[in-house]
Amino acid sequence: MAPITNGRLLFNEIPTGYPVPGQTTVYDASQTIDLENVPLNGGFLLKTLVLSIDPYLRGRMRDASKQSYSPAFQLGQPISNYGVGVVVRSENSAFQAGDHVYGHFPFQEYFVQTQAGAFRKVDNKHNLPWNVFVGAVGMPGQTAYAAWKEYANAKKGEVAFVTTGAGAVGSLVIQLAKKDGLKVIASAGSDEKVQFMKEIGADVAFNYKTTKTSEVLAKEGPIDVYWDNVGGETLEAALEAANRHARFIECGMISSYNQTPYAVSNLMNIVAKEIKISGFIVGTLLPKYQEAFYTEIPSMIASGEFKLKEDVTKGLEGAGEAILAVQKGTNTGKSVIVVADQ
Amino acid sequence: MAPITNGRLLFNEIPTGYPVPGQTTVYDASQTIDLENVPLNGGFLLKTLVLSIDPYLRGRMRDASKQSYSPAFQLGQPISNYGVGVVVRSENSAFQAGDHVYGHFPFQEYFVQTQAGAFRKVDNKHNLPWNVFVGAVGMPGQTAYAAWKEYANAKKGEVAFVTTGAGAVGSLVIQLAKKDGLKVIASAGSDEKVQFMKEIGADVAFNYKTTKTSEVLAKEGPIDVYWDNVGGETLEAALEAANRHARFIECGMISSYNQTPYAVSNLMNIVAKEIKISGFIVGTLLPKYQEAFYTEIPSMIASGEFKLKEDVTKGLEGAGEAILAVQKGTNTGKSVIVVADQ
Repeated sequence: MAPITNGRLLFNEIPTGYPVPGQTTVYDASQTIDLENVPLNGGFLLKTLVLSIDPYLRGRMRDASKQSYSPAFQLGQPISNYGVGVVVRSENSAFQAGDHVYGHFPFQEYFVQTQAGAFRKVDNKHNLPWNVFVGAVGMPGQTAYAAWKEYANAKKGEVAFVTTGAGAVGSLVIQLAKKDGLKVIASAGSDEKVQFMKEIGADVAFNYKTTKTSEVLAKEGPIDVYWDNVGGETLEAALEAANRHARFIECGMISSYNQTPYAVSNLMNIVAKEIKISGFIVGTLLPKYQEAFYTEIPSMIASGEFKLKEDVTKGLEGAGEAILAVQKGTNTGKSVIVVADQ
Repeated sequence: MAPITNGRLLFNEIPTGYPVPGQTTVYDASQTIDLENVPLNGGFLLKTLVLSIDPYLRGRMRDASKQSYSPAFQLGQPISNYGVGVVVRSENSAFQAGDHVYGHFPFQEYFVQTQAGAFRKVDNKHNLPWNVFVGAVGMPGQTAYAAWKEYANAKKGEVAFVTTGAGAVGSLVIQLAKKDGLKVIASAGSDEKVQFMKEIGADVAFNYKTTKTSEVLAKEGPIDVYWDNVGGETLEAALEAANRHARFIECGMISSYNQTPYAVSNLMNIVAKEIKISGFIVGTLLPKYQEAFYTEIPSMIASGEFKLKEDVTKGLEGAGEAILAVQKGTNTGKSVIVVADQ
């Protein structure tokens, strides 16, 4: 078989505000790969099927000299994130051709890997679509599950406020909170998202672009658990509406990723209301919760007990636009790139 | 015996900025009391010996309609805080004449109380001055002790940053941190305070008015434990200099008590560095730590292992000035009002 095109999405330029498709990242079709003859050097050849687009990717689009919790992307190289692929050929006993694996993928159609330990064989006993393994059964689902279990300390009848409640993480948090018997207030940025949040059980769902968060919380709070994906003005409103001994789970602050951060002035509420704030990175919590997660969540998705929504982009060419949509919140549901169907 | 003057410090006006002596509070000598004949109604007559002046009193000088963790002072009534007094007469079996008690006192020379449960008999087996029982062996000492034990999760060799390190709480925190084997960076607002912080063991002590906090922390950090009595710009510097998994103990934010709060813009560090922030009120932690506190601390003070510094004002007439000094940080050491020697 002749060499075929091996498309890639390259990191091209460090953005100052929102990432610009075709500028921050560019699609490149200049490379080819000979699937039958590419040397494996004891490794395995992976075909990328699905790639995840997540808010945190913006933080990796930085100067490599700046330290942070996740590594900076390298200019001129493919960006990378969680993905699912299928093994085409293997010289490694950990995987054989036809196996599906989950792990960190370059945004590239095919690649050779030698580190088997960096991937997990997907045990798809419920026959879920591969997409789901980068969403509710992937890093975003693990994020929601592990931090909710670790920090929510949820008690039946309490009130939770969940931001970006129609997203990959938030939508699972809403459903975990309802399962624990909480009243759930949830916010998102479109009426379509509000509708979805109601469908998955939010007691109070609102569009923060048309309704003031502080007014909703004043009426429906005080809040005992706050799931923060937003930061800034929304965090300020949550501090104001917090109940005594509230728990704040700090998962992300997308309001500050592409703009000058909004400065929060009412932090004295932390003392006066004895609030506990927990920042976390999912990788730290995962070892403790991974087994329970894979036991519980896939079957609840298969049975329909947990609902999810996806925003699917076909082909790597559209990944730059999908990245921007997630930063702007114009996607609805978990953003995934389907690079190949099988 | 004829009735004698019963001096009081009254709450006279809600301040907008710093509390103004003679305006926010006024000393009043218009009342008298007949110590031999005042009816006790089954209670006891207390003579006030020592009163504590603490930063949090500013928060009680508010409109009574505003809810907060500590009750608002009532206009026209004496302000109140922790104090030590001696029982003059008693009809209550819990106390007898000559007993010394610790509890919440009105700023008033003499008063009759019926609630014995609101006071704790002072067990002064080390023969410490009564002053100490509103400082290192009172609420400020309990604040330092209980929250350090509960939240610092201190590991030998880690770095702690303590603000208001020459104050009643901060100076004890420095000594607790040193006892646990940490490197201690400590800040205060005068060279005299810096000298005291060095005397009690701070490895790095600096005057934040003449040295930039962010520069000291960049050089001496990263910090693993942050004891916050200040908030605002200092909290922002601490977030910037925090190590991964740092613990922030939020005891107070005096920078915001008399001025518009400084708005903090780098809260994303909470997520990226997986920081735990714990706001607390000492009363919540006290039941868990009270016994250990009274076992350990008084003897360590008596032996000189724990050092302390006091700023003593003689007489209730000067209490308004002492309150202002604590808000401005112009006192050095624990501020106490000695109302009577015995």
